[in-house]
This record gives sequence, structure tokens and C-alpha cells, in this order.
Amino acid sequence: MGFFTQDIQTMDDLFVHTLRDIYYAEKQIVKALPDMIEKASGTQLKSGFEKHLKETEGQIQRLEQVFKLHGVDVSGVNCPAIDGILKEANEVASEVADKAVLDAALIAAAQAIEHYEITRYGTLVAWAKQLGRDDCASLLLQNLDEEKATDKKLSSMAEARLNRRAA
Amino acid sequence: MGFFTQDIQTMDDLFVHTLRDIYYAEKQIVKALPDMIEKASGTQLKSGFEKHLKETEGQIQRLEQVFKLHGVDVSGVNCPAIDGILKEANEVASEVADKAVLDAALIAAAQAIEHYEITRYGTLVAWAKQLGRDDCASLLLQNLDEEKATDKKLSSMAEARLNRRAA
Repeated sequence: MGFFTQDIQTMDDLFVHTLRDIYYAEKQIVKALPDMIEKASGTQLKSGFEKHLKETEGQIQRLEQVFKLHGVDVSGVNCPAIDGILKEANEVASEVADKAVLDAALIAAAQAIEHYEITRYGTLVAWAKQLGRDDCASLLLQNLDEEKATDKKLSSMAEARLNRRAA
Repeated sequence: MGFFTQDIQTMDDLFVHTLRDIYYAEKQIVKALPDMIEKASGTQLKSGFEKHLKETEGQIQRLEQVFKLHGVDVSGVNCPAIDGILKEANEVASEVADKAVLDAALIAAAQAIEHYEITRYGTLVAWAKQLGRDDCASLLLQNLDEEKATDKKLSSMAEARLNRRAA
């Protein structure tokens, strides 16, 4: 954010600001995922993170298309929210020695990341429609759907762990 | 978190740590909501935030019950995630002068908060069941259901704004 307050005056400004927020977030997630892949023990979890890394790279490209369609510079703004979520994920993971417990912590951390993305893309799709940018909304909706699918897969992995425990 | 790494050794440690994380988060949300209530212009949004403030106080009491049922001290741990989410909400809101745009920014900020809570309570319910603590799971599920209902209401408000615009 800039040094001057009240930089955001219109819905368009707010849309572009939030686009830059999620663009920064996705770039931080791409940097964080290799460490999560390395820490994961379960093969399903590890390959899930690997797949999500490739998916995230595609989502960044879609965001770059949205910037271009909307006629604004491709750039990020600091996003204290994702910085906090990733910092917390890293802190907790570094405290866990047991592999099964670490995998549970990694699934929870990944779901916190997914939920941040789901809320931001949900908002951005609504605002893109409000601004009459159905072309942007359609690209943002693709990212939203991918994040929701990833969150569902993570929930299934958490559920499967629970069922294995109960069996 | 402590100064020593690998403080979390079991699923029980991870459960208690995450419980303390959301307890801290809920307490920060209670502190942040009065400012959001003051900034909101729309009567529906303002009263929605007021209702959610009361609801959050009830959720904190339920968390205190969970600590007691599980036989551990009622305490919080720093949660960089919620700190980041609230910092960002505050930064964006301070930049917006137009009342309608500010309400849109406040709805988005509130949904980011809700999604953080939804992901944490979802995880905690699963872990409580895994640990055989159905009594704790049931209380945590009540908080989860309230957060999901609040998120839905916020989505409806965002949608209503969109429809008013289209009409």
C-alpha cells in the first residue's frame, strides 16, 4: 500500500488492489510449496502438493491475463494476511518431529492457505461482475474452482487419516 | 510458540496448540469488530457485525469449555495469520473514502476472517474426533456452523449489492 491514505476511491481501485494482493499471495505460495513438499511424508500428500504447485503457476498466468484484460500493470502489493498464514505454517511445522503429526499439521496449514485464496477469489469474481468485466470474472472463477477442489482433496485426506485411526 | 523447536510431539499437542491459536484469534476479532461496526455504513452490514460480535463472545466461552473438558489451561498463542488478516483489513479500510466502496471492502475483510475461522474449526473438529473427544468436537462444531452461517450472510450482502447495481 502507498504512503498516502485514501488511495482507493472506486470499486475499480478496490478490485485492482485486491487483484494485486492475491497476485502477491500466489507468488509467495509458489515459494512456500517446495518446502511443504519436502516436509510431507505421505505419498498422496506429497504428490498433492506437487500437483498444486503446477496448478498455482497456472493460476499466476491467469492473473496476469486478468491484469492485461483490465489494462493495468501486472504487479503485487504486500499481503500481510498470506505472510501471516505462511509464517504460522512454517513455525508449527518446524516444531513437529513425528511424521504423522507433521502431515496433519501440513494438511491444516494448506487448508488455511486454500481458504484465504477461496475468500479472495470469491470476492474478486463478484467485483469483476459488478464492474462488467465478465471476461476477468471467468478467469478468476477458474482459479476459485481449482482452490475449492484442492481444499476438498485436503479434507478427504484428513478424513481418511481419521478413518484409518478408527479402523 | 516457545523458544525450543519440536515442542509439538503428538496429535494432542497439535490439537491444543491449534485450540490456543483460534482462542487468540477470536479474542483479536472481538477487539477488531467495534472498529468495523463504526466504519460500516449499510444498516444491514452494521447490525450483522454487531450480531457477530455477540456471537464471537459466545464462541470464546465455548472454547473455554473445550479447554476445561480437555483438562488444559485456558490460554492463547500468537497467531500471525489472524494478525496479518486484521492488519490488512485495517490498512485497506483506512484507504477508502467512499462509503459504498468501504462497505464492499469491509464485507471482503469480514469474509477473510470467517474463512480463517472456518478452516481452523474444520481442522479442530476432525482432530477432536480423532482424539476420541466427541464432547469437544460437538462444541467446536457449533462454532464452525456459526462461522459458516455468517460467511453465507456476508456473501448474500455482496450478492445483493451486485443485484442492486444490475437493476
